[in-house]
Amino acid sequence: MNYFRPSVNRMIGYKPGEQPKPGTSIIKLNTNENPYPPSPKALEVLRNFDGDLLRRYPDSLAKEFCQAVSEVFGVPRDWIIVGNGCDELLNILIRACAEGSDRPVVYPTPTYILYHTLAAMQPAQVIEIPYPDDFQLPIEAIIQAQGALTFIASPNSPSAHIVPLEDLRSLAQQLSGILVVDEAYVDFGTGSALPLLEEFENVILLRTLSKGYGLAGLRLGFGLAHPRLLSGILKVKDSYNVDIVAMLVGAAAIRDQSYKNNCAEKVKESRAQLITDLRKLGFVVRDSQTNFVLAKPPAGDAEQLFLTLKERGIFVRYYKEPRIDDKLRITVGTPEQNQVLLKELATLLSTSC
Amino acid sequence: MNYFRPSVNRMIGYKPGEQPKPGTSIIKLNTNENPYPPSPKALEVLRNFDGDLLRRYPDSLAKEFCQAVSEVFGVPRDWIIVGNGCDELLNILIRACAEGSDRPVVYPTPTYILYHTLAAMQPAQVIEIPYPDDFQLPIEAIIQAQGALTFIASPNSPSAHIVPLEDLRSLAQQLSGILVVDEAYVDFGTGSALPLLEEFENVILLRTLSKGYGLAGLRLGFGLAHPRLLSGILKVKDSYNVDIVAMLVGAAAIRDQSYKNNCAEKVKESRAQLITDLRKLGFVVRDSQTNFVLAKPPAGDAEQLFLTLKERGIFVRYYKEPRIDDKLRITVGTPEQNQVLLKELATLLSTSC
Repeated sequence: MNYFRPSVNRMIGYKPGEQPKPGTSIIKLNTNENPYPPSPKALEVLRNFDGDLLRRYPDSLAKEFCQAVSEVFGVPRDWIIVGNGCDELLNILIRACAEGSDRPVVYPTPTYILYHTLAAMQPAQVIEIPYPDDFQLPIEAIIQAQGALTFIASPNSPSAHIVPLEDLRSLAQQLSGILVVDEAYVDFGTGSALPLLEEFENVILLRTLSKGYGLAGLRLGFGLAHPRLLSGILKVKDSYNVDIVAMLVGAAAIRDQSYKNNCAEKVKESRAQLITDLRKLGFVVRDSQTNFVLAKPPAGDAEQLFLTLKERGIFVRYYKEPRIDDKLRITVGTPEQNQVLLKELATLLSTSC
Repeated sequence: MNYFRPSVNRMIGYKPGEQPKPGTSIIKLNTNENPYPPSPKALEVLRNFDGDLLRRYPDSLAKEFCQAVSEVFGVPRDWIIVGNGCDELLNILIRACAEGSDRPVVYPTPTYILYHTLAAMQPAQVIEIPYPDDFQLPIEAIIQAQGALTFIASPNSPSAHIVPLEDLRSLAQQLSGILVVDEAYVDFGTGSALPLLEEFENVILLRTLSKGYGLAGLRLGFGLAHPRLLSGILKVKDSYNVDIVAMLVGAAAIRDQSYKNNCAEKVKESRAQLITDLRKLGFVVRDSQTNFVLAKPPAGDAEQLFLTLKERGIFVRYYKEPRIDDKLRITVGTPEQNQVLLKELATLLSTSC
């Protein structure tokens, strides 16, 4: 017997962005982490942690964290599901809903590559619908595909654009399956699909603490949806998927909205400056609703530029995928980190010209 | 479209043991937590945590933790997979290997109920083979079933017995699929299947920090197997499934073997006393290689006894399942907790006679 399922044998595992070795001085602009640390209030919880809480299994619904989310976002506690990062919630959604060609997974591309990885593993049919060059949502084609799950990242990666609320509303109305609005980058954008929750039973919003809250290391994400929708999804969740440390540290971080908003404002200012400066260097850069920019170099090979930057201690992200293989995805760093990047780019471009 | 897959609609979610509300003074002997807190060295890591580590995604293979496991157990680092609790590793194994009736899941019963829940969700055929009353492993029937995955919990819950190494070796030799030896309770028993790792490519051992190390709240488990076996399993794992706090706190706990062993010795002493005392009260109690005992009351209804104990603030575990619905599974608590339980049982039994 071959040890693994055919779908697992066929697939190539998802490759996450590279992590530098501890102790190396890398400028890390490749995985869209927040350049600012988490709220001091969250760190205080960590440092004063009651050790006896570690001895016991955590609450299986992460109640303490749900309570904080409920208070901050005004959503009832039973409209919330908590995951070991949003990646786990994506994985749970696919396992609960998608299967074969009868229950396909649909999404516009380019977008988060993990949607494909998880669907291939299930296995479920994947229907990818390319965004046009102006990144208007291809609503008709998405509706026609009638996914058991339709994923819309908004703001989207790597394009950095936001999908208008009206477009998402159209989808929710016309899809009989579930519309997943992945709002990982919402804290850096100008809108949210939150108003759709009360209107539609088939909409789930995903949020993460990895980006806006500076807690990528903690692994904490949550979903907001109607309890009837959550009932099926919760059956698939591991009982104790969120540890007590993440639960309590995350609750403190969620409650400290002013700190999070303040960091996001700083990132947005740096982003505006970075876009201006990249354009001055001749890059073609789209406006961004996220904490990264997608930038096409004025000349030369994007992959080569990515590799050279890496050699010089600056990590950015490069995807060898159609339509984006001529661009770099660059996380917005601190003003100082951005300056180092820009200086390096200026040098590299002047040498190559 | 129905939102969920047929296998998900059919299933009832796994029901974990009840957690008392925070602030209530419950004697909690229902989920086999360690009565002793985690190593002070682990708590020290938590309290001195570098907040900037939380900002970044963790290493996707939990290298720091693997390093500690490697040093302590003498297993190379690439023979280790780390999970968000052992439950996640079980879930990953099923998703990587089991499917329909061609790739069934096989295990002797009674055992950990989650094996069934996860297989039903996949869905994969489940072949359950009852243990005889003396809990000798039904080797021939298990081999005949030829599972893609065969789960043997050793020590087993709720029976508290250990499966002899020679029986496990026979299985590993004669199964073409994967033999999963779930050693969650190994720290309280007298043996391990560790010697089989070098002999067989198709064996994976699962260990957890929830029991012996007193870290159920941290969610951390690991698997040990040949790298060729791990290669397929790793494809199914979420990239960042283990958070940086669990990784570093867990590494400190694993390194402090003397603390863990000392706690386990105390539990074993209490266990011996608890078994003696329960037998004096007329309970039929099997010997135990775990931190719990399976005990049949001398008279009356086990479920009623479970409910009455609960009313009086003592949680134990009761399973409404064939062959064990006349017994209680009781976690070994501190000597003081055990005394409270025994006193209460003595009162209840004398009243009911």
